[in-house]
Amino acid sequence: MLNAGVIGYGYWGPNLVRNFMECEKSLVLKVSDLDPARLALCKSRYPSIQTTGDYREILNDPAIDAVVIATPVGTHYPLALEALQAGKHVWVEKPFTSTVEQGETLLNEAEKRGLKIIVDHTFIYTGAVKKIKSLVDEGAFGNIYYYDSVRINLGLFQQDVDVLWDLAVHDFSILHYLFGKKPTGISAIGKSHVAGKPENTAFVSLMYDDNFIAHINANWLSPVKVRQILIGGDKKMAVFNDLEQAEKLKIYDSGLVLDNQEDIRETMIGYRTGDMLAPKIPTTEALKDEVEHFIHCIDTGEEPITSGAMGLEMVRLLCLASESIKQQGAPLEVK
Amino acid sequence: MLNAGVIGYGYWGPNLVRNFMECEKSLVLKVSDLDPARLALCKSRYPSIQTTGDYREILNDPAIDAVVIATPVGTHYPLALEALQAGKHVWVEKPFTSTVEQGETLLNEAEKRGLKIIVDHTFIYTGAVKKIKSLVDEGAFGNIYYYDSVRINLGLFQQDVDVLWDLAVHDFSILHYLFGKKPTGISAIGKSHVAGKPENTAFVSLMYDDNFIAHINANWLSPVKVRQILIGGDKKMAVFNDLEQAEKLKIYDSGLVLDNQEDIRETMIGYRTGDMLAPKIPTTEALKDEVEHFIHCIDTGEEPITSGAMGLEMVRLLCLASESIKQQGAPLEVK
Amino acid sequence: MLNAGVIGYGYWGPNLVRNFMECEKSLVLKVSDLDPARLALCKSRYPSIQTTGDYREILNDPAIDAVVIATPVGTHYPLALEALQAGKHVWVEKPFTSTVEQGETLLNEAEKRGLKIIVDHTFIYTGAVKKIKSLVDEGAFGNIYYYDSVRINLGLFQQDVDVLWDLAVHDFSILHYLFGKKPTGISAIGKSHVAGKPENTAFVSLMYDDNFIAHINANWLSPVKVRQILIGGDKKMAVFNDLEQAEKLKIYDSGLVLDNQEDIRETMIGYRTGDMLAPKIPTTEALKDEVEHFIHCIDTGEEPITSGAMGLEMVRLLCLASESIKQQGAPLEVK
Amino acid sequence: MLNAGVIGYGYWGPNLVRNFMECEKSLVLKVSDLDPARLALCKSRYPSIQTTGDYREILNDPAIDAVVIATPVGTHYPLALEALQAGKHVWVEKPFTSTVEQGETLLNEAEKRGLKIIVDHTFIYTGAVKKIKSLVDEGAFGNIYYYDSVRINLGLFQQDVDVLWDLAVHDFSILHYLFGKKPTGISAIGKSHVAGKPENTAFVSLMYDDNFIAHINANWLSPVKVRQILIGGDKKMAVFNDLEQAEKLKIYDSGLVLDNQEDIRETMIGYRTGDMLAPKIPTTEALKDEVEHFIHCIDTGEEPITSGAMGLEMVRLLCLASESIKQQGAPLEVK
Repeated sequence: MLNAGVIGYGYWGPNLVRNFMECEKSLVLKVSDLDPARLALCKSRYPSIQTTGDYREILNDPAIDAVVIATPVGTHYPLALEALQAGKHVWVEKPFTSTVEQGETLLNEAEKRGLKIIVDHTFIYTGAVKKIKSLVDEGAFGNIYYYDSVRINLGLFQQDVDVLWDLAVHDFSILHYLFGKKPTGISAIGKSHVAGKPENTAFVSLMYDDNFIAHINANWLSPVKVRQILIGGDKKMAVFNDLEQAEKLKIYDSGLVLDNQEDIRETMIGYRTGDMLAPKIPTTEALKDEVEHFIHCIDTGEEPITSGAMGLEMVRLLCLASESIKQQGAPLEVK
Repeated sequence: MLNAGVIGYGYWGPNLVRNFMECEKSLVLKVSDLDPARLALCKSRYPSIQTTGDYREILNDPAIDAVVIATPVGTHYPLALEALQAGKHVWVEKPFTSTVEQGETLLNEAEKRGLKIIVDHTFIYTGAVKKIKSLVDEGAFGNIYYYDSVRINLGLFQQDVDVLWDLAVHDFSILHYLFGKKPTGISAIGKSHVAGKPENTAFVSLMYDDNFIAHINANWLSPVKVRQILIGGDKKMAVFNDLEQAEKLKIYDSGLVLDNQEDIRETMIGYRTGDMLAPKIPTTEALKDEVEHFIHCIDTGEEPITSGAMGLEMVRLLCLASESIKQQGAPLEVK
Repeated sequence: MLNAGVIGYGYWGPNLVRNFMECEKSLVLKVSDLDPARLALCKSRYPSIQTTGDYREILNDPAIDAVVIATPVGTHYPLALEALQAGKHVWVEKPFTSTVEQGETLLNEAEKRGLKIIVDHTFIYTGAVKKIKSLVDEGAFGNIYYYDSVRINLGLFQQDVDVLWDLAVHDFSILHYLFGKKPTGISAIGKSHVAGKPENTAFVSLMYDDNFIAHINANWLSPVKVRQILIGGDKKMAVFNDLEQAEKLKIYDSGLVLDNQEDIRETMIGYRTGDMLAPKIPTTEALKDEVEHFIHCIDTGEEPITSGAMGLEMVRLLCLASESIKQQGAPLEVK
Repeated sequence: MLNAGVIGYGYWGPNLVRNFMECEKSLVLKVSDLDPARLALCKSRYPSIQTTGDYREILNDPAIDAVVIATPVGTHYPLALEALQAGKHVWVEKPFTSTVEQGETLLNEAEKRGLKIIVDHTFIYTGAVKKIKSLVDEGAFGNIYYYDSVRINLGLFQQDVDVLWDLAVHDFSILHYLFGKKPTGISAIGKSHVAGKPENTAFVSLMYDDNFIAHINANWLSPVKVRQILIGGDKKMAVFNDLEQAEKLKIYDSGLVLDNQEDIRETMIGYRTGDMLAPKIPTTEALKDEVEHFIHCIDTGEEPITSGAMGLEMVRLLCLASESIKQQGAPLEVK
């Protein structure tokens, strides 16, 4: 039985508490938040959980094995560091940290103490992304040309991160998981439409050493919500629409057909369209699987799929993208 | 009565012939094409039209007032030049020319001879774009933040132009028409996935001297067809989905609400959503209006909305975008 | 503070428990279910609630003011009767009872004892239905022609009721609420495709003494889920799509235009289309409002909108529809 | 080469003329219409076609082999009879005739003279319906439970037929073609919302001697256009949405799963969902294939799939449905 303490009961915290509570192998003992109203809500739902305004009560509780951090990004580092120093395993929301240095310090601390860090890149644990991963691994797409994500909505303006760190980070993690290769270059353009606030609109391109290209359109000021990823290969193509209930993933038996005709008009129709298949996707909540994976990793010593090291990789890319935004979209090399 | 000759009866030519035939003030006398099969098709539909494999028969026909050029982009310049020199008004498909110099030469030639050039940026004549224009002009959107276009499909690979010149050009023309201001910078990333072929995927960002930003995602290798433009302002936002039959344009009474709270969680929900209105859009075919506008301009001496000068402006931007693609997305200044 | 006991923690019970728990004016003291696994789930979520396999523990608890019955329809009558006899207010799931006589007995019992019955016709408490009601009341639709509902999905086969009693009952309640008039005739056709099981497909028509007609298509064996109601009037028309997230309700400024032309072709196009408006609908959970309404009615003595009397009316119609199904769709008079 | 004359150049006539013109084996020599404006439009499109206000010029033209009748239903019988008597093959729009007797007379006349009648039930020639037919024939759906069609829009009010004869007739023909069996009973409810006009809303149920049931919802007064047919079987289910561009037909690997559990809750979830497949459908225009089929039948003596006899069968059902409407939906036996 893993005993957890949760710091932060804001937007995402309740989902974490619920999943750690409903998992048979874990229990939430304490929840802390700065807002008494949030603690009252938590208490009304789970009278058995102790609530507190002081997160240190969680760190100091010897019965607690793991600390779950669901607070603004800027606080991830100090909270995670203290938790590790108190000997707790750490679950931290994405993005991992605000800087690369912070992430490196946490990794060292965890390694030194034999503790696990998992970064909550939830998408990696969804049925749809797992299904795409298996299709990629078996070569179903053929030679993969591009990944094109639109992730926009009338969204929560984050206080301490921009839309890139809030939304594009999902795509960074999905790209990392699906293709397992590092971009060679990155170019990002961003715009803040509210003076003094972080960028609310960003367009990011990731270049790779082969023909592959990735693009992400992230926007907090869209009148409509879109969560759509296209993956194009020469054998198959896919559309992953996360807002669809019934057919989240569609696999198209479509591609490019090259004829070597000289005549312009005939060469123009150089593509192939076939059937479309929407495979059944398990509807298990991703967080449920992720909580179990976290417990499994603590028990066995395995590294989480979304480990601290992976989370650090994401922070590296985010920092570089932010730098490109400052340089008006100048392409930067990923080392 | 305007007598027209049409050069090129490929993909778009038949629409032009049909509209010039069905307009009460114009008639198509001759159609030329290099492909006898296309001429036969034209003849079967319009037995009254003379068809020919030699476009010079059109240029040399003194009964013909205007020449309609619907051929590959690379041929626009020589054909339009000859047509002007033969004293004909010119209708030319978009994009106007392959280079800025070609466009300038044509403009000079037309001006010298008192002839009209119209560039067929058809979107400008659609009911939806006209409706958006009137909303922009009356200030309905408030301060406009961004224009975000996704224009993708499993498309016709053009022989002599890339996806930018084929698809993004539509957005260049819509941006020019709607907002009437010139970008100050442009950054484009493109990828050709077929060796020796033009770019089939491109992402273009246009920067302006105010807060406004435009982005275009153009792709010939998408498994699904998308034609969607978002326009975000602080008062209203719009979605123009050109593939919708019934509700092409949706106006959202949504926007950003700034409260000056210090508390993180409250500031997070800084937006407003209200009703959505889908105004009735006239369903007149855009080409019908454009043909009438062309005839009107010839009759009155007015400049077409999509004049040669406007078409040249578009070519300038396309050339700059192509240059940015060569420089891996480097932001270039628009002079 | 209303203390509630909930009988039945199956499909719907958890939503009831959650809403009675989260309402500030009520608390759930006990939950009963025949299935220990369901009780364990309840306990894991709400350690403070006492769970029991014997519903009599709820009825016998003097601290409990109201009994919430979320069990199969066939058990509503005996459970509600016992609850009333134990002096408890009763919340009962729809449909109210299996027969008209049962409903009448419960109504008498409640009246005799001064207790409240609410029947959980949840749709009446949704933002969308309330909005439609206000449009109907202000005459926005003009003369209303029809109500046409499609309510189909790959659904839970109920054990003791057919698709009519499970799904069409929603439309009976919405019709009653929106228009407040009684049908004069009813005709229903139903089919059971599994031997020995209740009808899984049914089509019901309700006739009224004016021009209005209502039709309901209910189906447990549809590959796709549809929850769509059309309302047609001569001034406006509406589409209520309950599965839409953002635009559940669309109001069309469309209608019929009568010209008195004699010529066939001109009269053929006798309709008018205008703008479409999707009004903002509050997203409060209907059950939340309904729980508050129940408590309010108990406190003030008001009759609930979905009172026992209203629920009985619905049972009357359901019984008549079932009788029509037995007679192969013969139209039956509603007395 | 088949020489055709077309009577009626209203809504559908232009499509017929175009297809007979573009087919290599046929030609339209003459078109008649009572409206000079329609004739002028025809002439502007096809200067080679002779237009006339008097259909007798078509019947009397010995060069004409076949007469295509695209006029209001009430005129089908006299025009077709005269055409047959003039020795012409006949193409007649659906529905075939206004009465069963008229249809029988035409059949006799055609047989006596060795002439062909084709009734233009166009849907039978679409790629989607042909694909469904092949799935039905190979048993893909298993035991087929139901056919459920919604065919509604803000439609053309026909002068001489109601919505049943205008829209439901499509489903009658599709049902006949797909399943090749005759209903045993029919029940229809209809409503006219405009005094003195035909029914604009109708609901039709067709009963068969097995478990199969068909239902059609036809409406000329819907704010939205829907063209959706569901087919439910115990092995597979299908949705045919004719308004979809890309995925008109979706085949669901879904069905009913019977477990013999006694426990209520487990039996409730008695269904199976699997992958969904949208097979590629050829996009050939149905009329193109139908014109070729007509010519082929004339050449070979074969009976058309949508022969006069088949069209007569449809008229029989329509008459019966109209009779049921008069009897408020009373179920009538199909002999």
